[in-house]
Amino acid sequence: MAQRLDEFNEFRERMNERILAEDHATIKRFFGVDTLTYRDGALDAKTKELLGLCASMVLRCDDCISYHILQGHKLGVTRAEFFDVFSVALTVGGSIVIPHLRRAVAFLDEVETNSNS
Amino acid sequence: MAQRLDEFNEFRERMNERILAEDHATIKRFFGVDTLTYRDGALDAKTKELLGLCASMVLRCDDCISYHILQGHKLGVTRAEFFDVFSVALTVGGSIVIPHLRRAVAFLDEVETNSNS
Amino acid sequence: MAQRLDEFNEFRERMNERILAEDHATIKRFFGVDTLTYRDGALDAKTKELLGLCASMVLRCDDCISYHILQGHKLGVTRAEFFDVFSVALTVGGSIVIPHLRRAVAFLDEVETNSNS
Amino acid sequence: MAQRLDEFNEFRERMNERILAEDHATIKRFFGVDTLTYRDGALDAKTKELLGLCASMVLRCDDCISYHILQGHKLGVTRAEFFDVFSVALTVGGSIVIPHLRRAVAFLDEVETNSNS
Amino acid sequence: MAQRLDEFNEFRERMNERILAEDHATIKRFFGVDTLTYRDGALDAKTKELLGLCASMVLRCDDCISYHILQGHKLGVTRAEFFDVFSVALTVGGSIVIPHLRRAVAFLDEVETNSNS
Amino acid sequence: MAQRLDEFNEFRERMNERILAEDHATIKRFFGVDTLTYRDGALDAKTKELLGLCASMVLRCDDCISYHILQGHKLGVTRAEFFDVFSVALTVGGSIVIPHLRRAVAFLDEVETNSNS
Repeated sequence: MAQRLDEFNEFRERMNERILAEDHATIKRFFGVDTLTYRDGALDAKTKELLGLCASMVLRCDDCISYHILQGHKLGVTRAEFFDVFSVALTVGGSIVIPHLRRAVAFLDEVETNSNS
Repeated sequence: MAQRLDEFNEFRERMNERILAEDHATIKRFFGVDTLTYRDGALDAKTKELLGLCASMVLRCDDCISYHILQGHKLGVTRAEFFDVFSVALTVGGSIVIPHLRRAVAFLDEVETNSNS
Repeated sequence: MAQRLDEFNEFRERMNERILAEDHATIKRFFGVDTLTYRDGALDAKTKELLGLCASMVLRCDDCISYHILQGHKLGVTRAEFFDVFSVALTVGGSIVIPHLRRAVAFLDEVETNSNS
Repeated sequence: MAQRLDEFNEFRERMNERILAEDHATIKRFFGVDTLTYRDGALDAKTKELLGLCASMVLRCDDCISYHILQGHKLGVTRAEFFDVFSVALTVGGSIVIPHLRRAVAFLDEVETNSNS
Repeated sequence: MAQRLDEFNEFRERMNERILAEDHATIKRFFGVDTLTYRDGALDAKTKELLGLCASMVLRCDDCISYHILQGHKLGVTRAEFFDVFSVALTVGGSIVIPHLRRAVAFLDEVETNSNS
Repeated sequence: MAQRLDEFNEFRERMNERILAEDHATIKRFFGVDTLTYRDGALDAKTKELLGLCASMVLRCDDCISYHILQGHKLGVTRAEFFDVFSVALTVGGSIVIPHLRRAVAFLDEVETNSNS
């Protein structure tokens, strides 16, 4: 797996463990709600990941964008579908989204390259 | 049609006309891009409306939320599907979204009541 | 009780019931986390309400501001303490906070007048 | 003067007085900085009002937008210049700005009508 | 002192000097207001730092979060108290806060390790 | 040309090409609108760059800030004028803008040093 992907996942998992090790009731339950949010429901998990991705783009959080790209890719979201999500986020959120779009496409390129190798 | 829906649509259409009457090239082209964004593509129009709704909720714009609820409802989005979008927006955007969620549900109730009468 | 306070509380409670009546697992659990957040812990409930108020002001949500003013007032927060919270929110969030500060002070005036009558 | 303009100015002035009457050092000094910001400098007052207007639009604060339109209008900003500011805010901030743009144009119409009568 | 802390403080101080060296009246006075904000008042300095930290988390500014963790730590804020602030910020601001929470805990770990060595 | 400037421009151009290579109608047209926005109009290109800079600062996007500093510098914006824009953004957006102000001044220093060498 590529370096940036590795670093991203390693830091994410290590710090999630540090956070949960504190055993703070509210924070632990929030993490539980977060996991529950993306399960199949009236909308399937794939659509929910796209919603999470779009929300992350307009709120401009690179780590959240990367995470939802990874999850979406695992669930079979195509490059064309990702760009449709990007286009909605760009229109709603404006040109301030563009730097995050650049990093999103760089990350998507890396995820696709990695899954083909 | 109910009063709030009427007022919402009337003000929206009247002011869109005022804005476009100014004939400002950038603004007119932006409105064109906005319309284009929600057309069927790799993702269908219904999914795109849900993306627009989720983005509008985390950015907390009541008028945008109302608009995407109206459009989604026309495209057959069910109440259960709307609540799935609401749940993603709530988790991503936090409790600050709740007052907008209350107004979104009040608006959805009105849209559903109106379409049944 | 004054009219604005009544309206605020009535709409809030009625719509919370509508939302929870949908019985959506994620949303219900989020509401549970929200309640849990402001319980006494390492910091007491009063301090947590002030944190919630400050966060609501920089995120500029009038309903959230009103709610935390009400809760803080019940827990004995003084006017001088509220203004200290307002001052932190104003410095961190900038002049864009001022219109919300105006409405916050108008609401606080109403809460104080009401509790004295 | 038109009703909405009157109400806007009356509430703004009354609450500013209430806020400053509290005599909170930080808040009073912040209000002083706010006034100082828009004085002639390397950029003239008119350009600074346009900057404040553009910032207010992308941060989506209707009251701030109204205030800077009023100040800009007093300093001779033309309708065409206002629409140029609106176009930058729309592109940078995205379609989420549109409902605020509608209200901005409605307010500008009112300000222009009032100054011609 | 650890490397990240050193770098953070060095850049912060060097650039604050560059900014103030410009001798811009508004900016200098804003920096004065910023300092004044966190002095003991109706609320003590420690509580005000926690308010500043919570506001910085929901606005998602890593540097501001680090700064208020440093200041809070100097004033005796405990790890359990920091996690209570984190929990309020997480609930109010949503899962979009989580990447900043990870970096906040990594920074807090570093501050605590450093103060014990 | 200095390293940071080079890296900034190289990544920006490379990823813009990757994005446009996807040939997504909405995204391509959005990029066209973005370019159109900053052309001379009722306000000249220089003023529009300052508006874009101010909007980018209050929305706290470092890459957007850097880009508008570069464009403004090419159009003859002076250091004193840049600091006037910074001061408006600081007042409107609050102390949360300060870390971005530090990086903006560091970038401006680099741009000025480079253009003098």
